[in-house]
Amino acid sequence: MASDHAVGVSLLGAGNVGAGVIQALTSGATRYAARVGRPLELRRVLVRDAARSRPGVPAGALTAEIEDVLSDERTRIVIEVLGGEEPARDYIRIALESGRHVVTANKEVMAKHGASLLAVAAKHGVRLLYEASVGGGIPIISPLSRDLLANEITAVTAIINGTTNYMLTAMAADGTAYADVLAEAQRLGYAEPDPTADVEGIDAAYKLAILCGLAFHVDVSPEDVTRRGITQLHPRDFRYAEELGYAIKLLANGRLLDGALLASVQPTLVALDEPLAKVDGVLNAVQIEGDLIGRVIFEGPGAGPMPTASAILADVLDVARDLVAERRPIEVMAYQPVEICPPARATSRYYLRVTVADQAGVLARIAGALGAQGISIASVIQFEADEDAHTAELVITTHTAPGDHLEAALAEVRAMDVVVEVGNVLPMVGS
Amino acid sequence: MASDHAVGVSLLGAGNVGAGVIQALTSGATRYAARVGRPLELRRVLVRDAARSRPGVPAGALTAEIEDVLSDERTRIVIEVLGGEEPARDYIRIALESGRHVVTANKEVMAKHGASLLAVAAKHGVRLLYEASVGGGIPIISPLSRDLLANEITAVTAIINGTTNYMLTAMAADGTAYADVLAEAQRLGYAEPDPTADVEGIDAAYKLAILCGLAFHVDVSPEDVTRRGITQLHPRDFRYAEELGYAIKLLANGRLLDGALLASVQPTLVALDEPLAKVDGVLNAVQIEGDLIGRVIFEGPGAGPMPTASAILADVLDVARDLVAERRPIEVMAYQPVEICPPARATSRYYLRVTVADQAGVLARIAGALGAQGISIASVIQFEADEDAHTAELVITTHTAPGDHLEAALAEVRAMDVVVEVGNVLPMVGS
Repeated sequence: MASDHAVGVSLLGAGNVGAGVIQALTSGATRYAARVGRPLELRRVLVRDAARSRPGVPAGALTAEIEDVLSDERTRIVIEVLGGEEPARDYIRIALESGRHVVTANKEVMAKHGASLLAVAAKHGVRLLYEASVGGGIPIISPLSRDLLANEITAVTAIINGTTNYMLTAMAADGTAYADVLAEAQRLGYAEPDPTADVEGIDAAYKLAILCGLAFHVDVSPEDVTRRGITQLHPRDFRYAEELGYAIKLLANGRLLDGALLASVQPTLVALDEPLAKVDGVLNAVQIEGDLIGRVIFEGPGAGPMPTASAILADVLDVARDLVAERRPIEVMAYQPVEICPPARATSRYYLRVTVADQAGVLARIAGALGAQGISIASVIQFEADEDAHTAELVITTHTAPGDHLEAALAEVRAMDVVVEVGNVLPMVGS
Repeated sequence: MASDHAVGVSLLGAGNVGAGVIQALTSGATRYAARVGRPLELRRVLVRDAARSRPGVPAGALTAEIEDVLSDERTRIVIEVLGGEEPARDYIRIALESGRHVVTANKEVMAKHGASLLAVAAKHGVRLLYEASVGGGIPIISPLSRDLLANEITAVTAIINGTTNYMLTAMAADGTAYADVLAEAQRLGYAEPDPTADVEGIDAAYKLAILCGLAFHVDVSPEDVTRRGITQLHPRDFRYAEELGYAIKLLANGRLLDGALLASVQPTLVALDEPLAKVDGVLNAVQIEGDLIGRVIFEGPGAGPMPTASAILADVLDVARDLVAERRPIEVMAYQPVEICPPARATSRYYLRVTVADQAGVLARIAGALGAQGISIASVIQFEADEDAHTAELVITTHTAPGDHLEAALAEVRAMDVVVEVGNVLPMVGS
């Protein structure tokens, strides 16, 4: 690159996030030139319909052909904001192979193919950066990669899906049913028309896989994450949780158990005095525990075009400054293979909601089934009785127990004639 | 540096933080070698009494002479954890001039002399890193320098002194008087025998000066920070604040007002729904607002040997990885001179506690004095009356008003025969 050149940047995708990046590049041009030492120049923007003009995009920059991006010799940095697995993954690979640095916001691609793409980048002497793939604008990839690197990380616990956190906050606030909250979230644009990736925890599992890889320096794929969504939560669960002193959050958690990785995304009762219990609405928060740091929390907007642009452009500025200084890319640490811990081996305290026949001796039988598996009860509250149906609802919290012991006990409880239904069974953290 | 060498690290100081660094270097030796690509080797440790042995320090490494550190050719990184202004500043300068990279936890030196020392580092082609100087283990220097670099930062608001936050939390919790809380904090080791630097906001002002420099890319010195300590706070202020829906925090705030820097450390009423209101005890938190990101918050342990070692060693690993990769240091952005905004030009909402004669017409006169300066009252609550003294306590909150208008009104109020005392006057933020 001639030293008097601007740093050429091209964009794959011009949706919400892409438009945010273009807007920021335009409005911040002067300060970016000052911070990099040379101006950033928007070179090509890959879109489906190159005939439709876009604000801030120079005439001639729009193209529907990836080849037009790759053949532009002045493009040094490619920003991928297409989303989805393909063709994003393929384009990232081709761009890296062509000697371009790549900045991506793509959690699905990084979760599924991060290790192999980082290897491609290393092979071609370029960088692949992905701060925007987790937590929107919240700095988390870079802090894990650099600022907390002296630590042995012991746990990552996070609220990393704004859609579900908005929905859970609303359900807790006013007892609205799941379906109604979903409809409202869709109306506000917080949830997609097909909400599956959010409400089933798929999106959060992608992000957790990325975080676990960085935190524990291990190879982890989204399938390694045990996953349960929020669709079965009932307004009563929120009321009972609150009476017990807990909030319900879709918690992503990763930790090592005897060297094996235990990673899960599931609705969890979080004690109200835990910082994560207070993270409400569309906010995201990531809590990292390490042997030196103790506990540190990063909280902020987990989505949105401008916060995401903040993360993308931080990566772009970092690469551009290296280009200007002719600094060679630093090697990314290789990840190690890791055993995946079966969820059954994990231990937790649990919240159980059980609908039972409203008659004497029922609790004794349930307690007996739990006790036979070595599970002791921390508290029992009988919430409302349905007099017509002659049923009552028991909310039982347990002391710490292994998942497989709980499952065995629950199988027995479910089979009891006095048990109408075992409702939600949720892990509990804090206090 | 021969490529088969360990990376030599020497330490200036072996107090609490230094001992934490040594302990971490020892216990984490294997992982640091893996993360850097070569082992870190502790070469020299500068102490007052080199005859006294220290755990984890190899025989012969202890010295009382700075020359012994500088003459060790294998020392590539010098960690400064002496604290205080001199000789720390001098040693940092000499180490940089000798071609050593320097990692420091020294807020006083960085706040007062950061710009000139960074210039020395640049001149000698080495790095001066100081993540540990603000917020203990919380990553904040690096996120401001890199991860939020695409933003125009609009405000920095922080709780960055754990001692005072512990004390304010205790005063709020149980109505304890300042002197008693201070004695307890000293007993627990949270406060120094001479607590001045903490309770007068001097420590926080150093840290805020560092944060403002990074956030706004301007030259700022600790004297540019308007500063008020916590010594005049009364248990009643906490009770009244709580009734109004606020916590009292020693808040460090920096922002630009028409291009001029407004930086202050002062006890502030923070609305209870603000995240910073919930940061209790010895925790620290830094909230950054920017044009792209909106608002992001970093929270964690603001002090302690191991969290501070986490930040110091993050910087050490960063330098060591650059050394191994033979990456040249990137230029640190030069700071620009900035006008300092007189506090009188700043606007805020205010909390006023006024002791008055318990008679009719008093409020009307005070309201008149405020109104004459264009200040409108948001709420008035008459708290307790002292029947023996025939006095009452008025707590007045105002709408937004310029500081100089408030001062003019308060001068008039103080002169009224019906006013016994104008107690605390505190700014309010949030809600």
